[in-house]
Amino acid sequence: MSDNLAISFDDILSAAKRLEGHAVRTPLLEFAPLNERLGKRVLIKFEGAQHTGSFKFRGAFNRISTIDPSAKSAGVVAWSSGNHAQGIAAAASMNGIPATIVMPSDAPKIKVNNTRALGADIIFYDRYTESREEIAMALVKERGAILVPSYDDPFIIAGQGTVGLEIAQQAEEVGATIGAVIAPCGGGGLISGTATAIKEKCPEARVYSAEPEGFDSTGRSLASDTPAGNDPKARSICDALQSPYPGTMTLPINKQKLAGGLAVSDDEVRAAVRFAFEKLKLVAEPGGSAGLAAALAGKIPDHDGALAIVISGANVDPELYCEILSS
Amino acid sequence: MSDNLAISFDDILSAAKRLEGHAVRTPLLEFAPLNERLGKRVLIKFEGAQHTGSFKFRGAFNRISTIDPSAKSAGVVAWSSGNHAQGIAAAASMNGIPATIVMPSDAPKIKVNNTRALGADIIFYDRYTESREEIAMALVKERGAILVPSYDDPFIIAGQGTVGLEIAQQAEEVGATIGAVIAPCGGGGLISGTATAIKEKCPEARVYSAEPEGFDSTGRSLASDTPAGNDPKARSICDALQSPYPGTMTLPINKQKLAGGLAVSDDEVRAAVRFAFEKLKLVAEPGGSAGLAAALAGKIPDHDGALAIVISGANVDPELYCEILSS
Repeated sequence: MSDNLAISFDDILSAAKRLEGHAVRTPLLEFAPLNERLGKRVLIKFEGAQHTGSFKFRGAFNRISTIDPSAKSAGVVAWSSGNHAQGIAAAASMNGIPATIVMPSDAPKIKVNNTRALGADIIFYDRYTESREEIAMALVKERGAILVPSYDDPFIIAGQGTVGLEIAQQAEEVGATIGAVIAPCGGGGLISGTATAIKEKCPEARVYSAEPEGFDSTGRSLASDTPAGNDPKARSICDALQSPYPGTMTLPINKQKLAGGLAVSDDEVRAAVRFAFEKLKLVAEPGGSAGLAAALAGKIPDHDGALAIVISGANVDPELYCEILSS
Repeated sequence: MSDNLAISFDDILSAAKRLEGHAVRTPLLEFAPLNERLGKRVLIKFEGAQHTGSFKFRGAFNRISTIDPSAKSAGVVAWSSGNHAQGIAAAASMNGIPATIVMPSDAPKIKVNNTRALGADIIFYDRYTESREEIAMALVKERGAILVPSYDDPFIIAGQGTVGLEIAQQAEEVGATIGAVIAPCGGGGLISGTATAIKEKCPEARVYSAEPEGFDSTGRSLASDTPAGNDPKARSICDALQSPYPGTMTLPINKQKLAGGLAVSDDEVRAAVRFAFEKLKLVAEPGGSAGLAAALAGKIPDHDGALAIVISGANVDPELYCEILSS
């Protein structure tokens, strides 16, 4: 660990070794219509092609694969709106560990069904009136299970950081110099890990988080220099990015590594989902499209070099997807 | 040319050189849910990520980039239900050549709009009562323009063959031994070019064409050893695969290189489009999904080694796409 931050670049290298042969090295893709639209070289890191359809498998596998054999039978417990749930379920199943996930009752059906299909038990709670933390902690105490947080855990952050490591490696392979990187941000695991890798490999690059308006606690925390929470009354189409506050491990990393936090409206997210369908031919879920939304809305400050955008997940119910395509 | 076939493997290598830096080297992707479903290693060659959202750009650029400067101003003419149209429009624009495309009046809106946006002129015809060939040939005579066929042309076949060349190269990069390859087939340009490359690089691999039921003229021609046409009354959800008969250049290649031709129903195609959305997170158009449809329907004969499936295009109107997702 460097500077008292939760992870160092070496932790990401260790995660990459653990993930080798287990996680997908997702493609870094380039599209003429996107380059034309933004007037620069743009590279899309498509985590929809990761196991379970989002980056979350990376952190989950990095954490769960290090669980001591003697602790396996008690299982793991996690809370998640659905992508961490699937990542945990898949990684637990691959490591022969039972998993129980606390999910909001309004989680997308595709996420609930996939989590169940991967063999995990699901306990539902009300996103707006119940505490997922309390429910999960009760299970941990009752069973002696291991809690796998969705972002405030060094193994989780380092695992998600392999996204940034791969961006740096793959950009080099295609002869691109990365000038800026943007990724969606809920609790901040993906962006803090990614920023740690990018600032090590491409120190000149500026890294931005993308959050939904009303859930832009990381952006406001960075701007005000004081940790800020989100209004419990806020609502967003981005079911995956509704953390109530920035992580206690992720925010200090983001304060040191990020150039800023950008907020996007639901309409900007919808436009990004449609753009990904029409021009990139990629399925992207609303939360996974927040970085693309910020870029298409012209919110990323000018910079030299190529822009890398993480599309972080693609688990969206067909009903919502089609409502977005027709809007 | 070998054995009096329209192209040799060397023509594909030449095409690959011409396309370098102009076409996208599309990703060869692997997905756990697809491996599990088919009980083997499966690699998806995703041509939705190609310029204009289908493989057609490859052949179009390979042909158009070789047009003599003195012939450029008279322009090019082509007929197409939409993917060749967009490929021609993009390649012509990149080479500073005017393009006119004869398109069926029921072509998907996304294909018409994109073709127009790429700067081509469009002339509509009735797919079931008028002859696209006659309309196009009249323009060729009137203007002295160059006709760019959608499949019966050595440059087109060789350009599409770079799909097969890349599959062989990329499979090697990920340590996979290709045992079978399947790609959608209309007039047969993609499959004949792909088969030429695959049989050179992986001689043991079996290559199959996938056609819609009712438009399975290549499959029936291979099975009967006599060129067979399609019933003009046939209808299919695969707008891109409705050639009335196999190509005069492509069929001899396919007779020599293919292990067989498989036919898929509209329902099997719909299931494949949905599977690509749900599990692969890739947008695939109906015709582009015919190979995946055959695989998911269990129609590909048993074989050793990995199966490579070409998803050849992703230009689908949101209305039809959402009808398929909800069916």
